[in-house]
Amino acid sequence: MRPDDVLKRFYSVIPAGGVGTRLWPLSRAAAPKFLHDLTGSGSTLIRATYARLAPLSGGRTMVVSGRAHRRAVMEQLPELAAANLVLEPEPKDSAAAIGLAAAILHYRDPSIIMGSFAADQVIHPVEAFQSAVRDAVHVAAEGYIVTIGITPTHASTGFGYIRTADPLNLASAPSAFAVADYVEKPDEGTAASYLATGGYHWNAGMFVAPVDLLLKHLEANEPELHAGLMEIAAVWGTPARAETVQRVWPSLPKTAIDYAVAEPAAAAGDVAMIPGGFSWDDVGDFAAIGRLNAAAEMSDLTVLGEGARVYSDTASGVVVSDTKRVIALIGIDNVVVVDTPDALLVTTKEHAQQVKSAVEHLRASGDIDVL
Amino acid sequence: MRPDDVLKRFYSVIPAGGVGTRLWPLSRAAAPKFLHDLTGSGSTLIRATYARLAPLSGGRTMVVSGRAHRRAVMEQLPELAAANLVLEPEPKDSAAAIGLAAAILHYRDPSIIMGSFAADQVIHPVEAFQSAVRDAVHVAAEGYIVTIGITPTHASTGFGYIRTADPLNLASAPSAFAVADYVEKPDEGTAASYLATGGYHWNAGMFVAPVDLLLKHLEANEPELHAGLMEIAAVWGTPARAETVQRVWPSLPKTAIDYAVAEPAAAAGDVAMIPGGFSWDDVGDFAAIGRLNAAAEMSDLTVLGEGARVYSDTASGVVVSDTKRVIALIGIDNVVVVDTPDALLVTTKEHAQQVKSAVEHLRASGDIDVL
Repeated sequence: MRPDDVLKRFYSVIPAGGVGTRLWPLSRAAAPKFLHDLTGSGSTLIRATYARLAPLSGGRTMVVSGRAHRRAVMEQLPELAAANLVLEPEPKDSAAAIGLAAAILHYRDPSIIMGSFAADQVIHPVEAFQSAVRDAVHVAAEGYIVTIGITPTHASTGFGYIRTADPLNLASAPSAFAVADYVEKPDEGTAASYLATGGYHWNAGMFVAPVDLLLKHLEANEPELHAGLMEIAAVWGTPARAETVQRVWPSLPKTAIDYAVAEPAAAAGDVAMIPGGFSWDDVGDFAAIGRLNAAAEMSDLTVLGEGARVYSDTASGVVVSDTKRVIALIGIDNVVVVDTPDALLVTTKEHAQQVKSAVEHLRASGDIDVL
Repeated sequence: MRPDDVLKRFYSVIPAGGVGTRLWPLSRAAAPKFLHDLTGSGSTLIRATYARLAPLSGGRTMVVSGRAHRRAVMEQLPELAAANLVLEPEPKDSAAAIGLAAAILHYRDPSIIMGSFAADQVIHPVEAFQSAVRDAVHVAAEGYIVTIGITPTHASTGFGYIRTADPLNLASAPSAFAVADYVEKPDEGTAASYLATGGYHWNAGMFVAPVDLLLKHLEANEPELHAGLMEIAAVWGTPARAETVQRVWPSLPKTAIDYAVAEPAAAAGDVAMIPGGFSWDDVGDFAAIGRLNAAAEMSDLTVLGEGARVYSDTASGVVVSDTKRVIALIGIDNVVVVDTPDALLVTTKEHAQQVKSAVEHLRASGDIDVL
């Protein structure tokens, strides 16, 4: 029997940022990916993320998002305590967002073990995820930053990888491995060799860590960022908060938590990994939406959208209907059509990743009203 | 010198019917093809048709259309005399529409030579068309129904063909041929043999004929239709018109002018042909719209629609934007996107002809609000 008391130290943090550019025009600045139900489950991704974590952390859940999403997040998560909604005045990348959550929690209780889980991922089955997080909390309690690795299903070039070393042989979490290092998104040949070799997992950005250990590494690697975040956290529950955030936040360096904490911590031998025994998708593009939504019987066409009126002949593909318009599709295999009131995307599943460059082009040409 | 007096007998008739199903959702029951500017010329097709004929017939132009289009036709052709706008209470195919115009004109002056030219065709150069019509009027004055044949540019299976016999050797129109017969839309092999053989022209449905000769053939082949049309024409300018149209029109047989007049007249040796020395397109589908509109420089993408906001990467194709929405196209060659407020079509130029079956499917499934 392992001591389940450590679970009482667990606090969920949900970074809800990122526009999801590859899902434009469905996902956009005003209505980012995490505010959509992309799987036909009836829940938005952030709601599903919250619900997945609630059995573990309950009311001990903190959300970090942009100011523009305050109302939407509160609508999605009415249970969330106001003190646990952290709003960034402007995006400062993941080290600032997650670091601020860690700093605030550290001021509340330095023994907290936080788990950071992005608001826009799809995970099944929930029980396997929760089991992995529980294991991770036990490993974290032994003094590790614990990442949850995803078993690769194909030689993806879209994710970073975690290379494991030996098993940690912990009685409380026998599946835990030491992490040798993080590796950047590989090319196809390298990715294939990772799969052949074994010992590599996808880095889904999920980790569980004692806040003091996380902040220790942040301080060592990004002292300026650490100092700024601690200054804000010190006044978080006080009237000085607004002024302090306004003054300090804009000056903070922009960097990713991977560089600021995870990679140097791995080099220091402080990172462990729990293999996630669940299927995972970051819904990175419209091809993913096709994968994640069962197509109608006798058809390869996935249709998302209440009251959608879609006619298709032999076409396979993905249709997201955010209007009530009739949509007729003729003769394009794997077509992707995303129909919103002010913007329309037409592409194919094979070109789904290129949506990002289309959005960049629209931004460059000044069509920012639809981004 | 030929006697140009016969041109004073000339009267243009413009049948403006036909929804243009293959151009859905741009063209539809409430806004059929002839009410659109499909070539970026700044004129709707019916306006361009009227303008093309005006130098020949001036105010002697009659339009036959559906009741629903009264206001739109009057807006497009403000010069049109009210007595020259013939509105069908319901569609009865071309023999009734053109026959009624012939009957009304015959009551006005039995020596009239009418020319019938559909409202939804694109013709260049206008001068060559006008020259062909002038020739046709001269031939008609000699007692012929004169069709204007289109020189085939490819082995089309989408048109009927006109097979010519010997030249008529008329001094007033040396290019005129006798017509041996009309042949139905051929299969590909047959069409190719027509081109190889020579002596075949496309039947564009354009013809010039003395109204008395046209009515004589109509009476011989469709006596019931002829009688009904003459009954309506007899009261056209009188208070009895409304009642008579209402009573007689619904009972008229539905048939095409080809079967009711042209083919039997050809068999009787009464049909001649003038070869049209102009390029002609019936804008049958969205591929035609691509052909008829010069694409932007350095791109194979044709964009129709004022204020269109289209981003495309390497895609070629046709975009008709009837909304102000941003449209992003990624990676589909020859894509066709037609964006209207209540209906969206996505297909390719290769599948342009299949739009018709999509519309039929929508009708069958009750989506008639967008047809």
